[in-house]
Amino acid sequence: MRQKITLREVGLRDGLQIHPTFMQTRDKLAWIMAEAATGIPEIEVTSYVPPKLIPQFADSGPVTEGALRIPGLTVTALIPNLRGAQRGLELGVHKLNFVMSVSQTHNMKNVRRSPEESAADFRDIAALIRSHPEAKRPVICGSLSTALGCSYEGRIAVSQVVKYAVQLAEAGAQEIVIADTVGYADPNQVRIVFKAVLAEVGSLPVAAHFHDTRGTGLANVCAALDCGITMFDASLAGLGGCPFAPGASGNVVMEDLCFMLDSMGYETGVDLQTLIKVRELVSNALPDISMQGALARAGLPRGYVTTAERVAVQ
Amino acid sequence: MRQKITLREVGLRDGLQIHPTFMQTRDKLAWIMAEAATGIPEIEVTSYVPPKLIPQFADSGPVTEGALRIPGLTVTALIPNLRGAQRGLELGVHKLNFVMSVSQTHNMKNVRRSPEESAADFRDIAALIRSHPEAKRPVICGSLSTALGCSYEGRIAVSQVVKYAVQLAEAGAQEIVIADTVGYADPNQVRIVFKAVLAEVGSLPVAAHFHDTRGTGLANVCAALDCGITMFDASLAGLGGCPFAPGASGNVVMEDLCFMLDSMGYETGVDLQTLIKVRELVSNALPDISMQGALARAGLPRGYVTTAERVAVQ
Repeated sequence: MRQKITLREVGLRDGLQIHPTFMQTRDKLAWIMAEAATGIPEIEVTSYVPPKLIPQFADSGPVTEGALRIPGLTVTALIPNLRGAQRGLELGVHKLNFVMSVSQTHNMKNVRRSPEESAADFRDIAALIRSHPEAKRPVICGSLSTALGCSYEGRIAVSQVVKYAVQLAEAGAQEIVIADTVGYADPNQVRIVFKAVLAEVGSLPVAAHFHDTRGTGLANVCAALDCGITMFDASLAGLGGCPFAPGASGNVVMEDLCFMLDSMGYETGVDLQTLIKVRELVSNALPDISMQGALARAGLPRGYVTTAERVAVQ
Repeated sequence: MRQKITLREVGLRDGLQIHPTFMQTRDKLAWIMAEAATGIPEIEVTSYVPPKLIPQFADSGPVTEGALRIPGLTVTALIPNLRGAQRGLELGVHKLNFVMSVSQTHNMKNVRRSPEESAADFRDIAALIRSHPEAKRPVICGSLSTALGCSYEGRIAVSQVVKYAVQLAEAGAQEIVIADTVGYADPNQVRIVFKAVLAEVGSLPVAAHFHDTRGTGLANVCAALDCGITMFDASLAGLGGCPFAPGASGNVVMEDLCFMLDSMGYETGVDLQTLIKVRELVSNALPDISMQGALARAGLPRGYVTTAERVAVQ
């Protein structure tokens, strides 16, 4: 049995949030539909923040509703606070991804709260969700950004990452995400941080969110795989960045990640060739966006048989 | 004690060989000198091939002579055959890097010989070097290109890689290089191939030469590190490619590799900040060359202290 890896597309949220041109709702939905059709099981489709703050997410309602009509897709949205959680409950989104930053400075800039205040907010959010009818409760996920470094504060103490991971887990998070928001991590640091987090909250699924800002993205994925991590965020064409994290650049490129995992014999459930074609849709809709990605440029190796094809033949 | 890693610059050979514009000899020497000054201990400065075949190396004589005047630098040149070895002996280069391809088709296109014929050539080369006065003998290194895949033949059998590694070692190679010429490898494949090679020729130093064609370059470096490999080829700004390997693109980016290793706590002996500055020299000399590299774009992490600086303070 091949080890299964869950890949989550975050380009519609992390990739679009810093992009100055509004992507039309129909284009977002076409992207979501096309990528879901490649076998990506989960997509973070938007963020429930005031449109005044990030105009790109002014259509969070229709995008969520459209995505929820796609059979089999887990539809996730980012929330920074209780208000965002309320919006998610109204819309019936499948999963809420609460994001707070371990870095005091980054969290203040991002949501004008200390990490302690954000962790307290999360307790209120979890309570709100628990008060909701069980059948309609979204999965609630706690993400720790700048967990592997911050462009304001530099190195972040592992103990701080573990402390907030435990607080989120104790408050009721059903999943923890450890994020290298600004691409500072190296594979040894990844091992140290993930092992420390897993030691405390390892009964929950723990996911990794890496940026490829300094070229170490896929190497960091391998280090996390070594720790037993099987859920990874990535974005098509490596779109991504944070408006309040100077120097942040794109997420790990989904196509490259998918290729590496498939080549290593992991099961992603994703059709690589179809995935590469989704890039066209995005670049046609947003001609001014910068598309990264080595696989799309180089193509699959000659005679390459995807893991899915290999298994189908056997 | 930090583990020492030896980094070898191959951009002057692997990077320039496919570039249509001739880089002036003085510019090549300025590049070599500048990069040697950053602490890179070994540079493959040229290739002893007929200028008719690769005009970029028409100045292999003066480039070798100039590089040999740099104190402390190990000066290496690529050779495809006996004639190249003779030229290297005349010039007094420190190390000869004999390259043959494990792929029959690639080796035929590259040097118009079967791998068996190339391995036989290597025996003659090793004999020639042994006939040279001991004090003046260059180190002789055997490189196996397309060892992790070939753009003509696809997958390459591990047994073939091991077979030729053993043949080169038995003929007298003092070092073996395993090369992923066209960037097909994934980290699991790297582990399999390097372990198999080390099991047979592990008494010799074994180096890794990765291309980042599909984004897996640094992840593959980490997999090789896991196998105990401590010598890596890379090229400044990720220059590189092979004229007879369609779809090949650049080597692992030296600056990004250096950053990752330094960040992981390995000792490279290289001054990262100075290394990044060498890029300017190359792009000024060859404005039409495509420069890759994430670190140069993003800069070092805030508050980043290089391993060398950390140690100096302690």
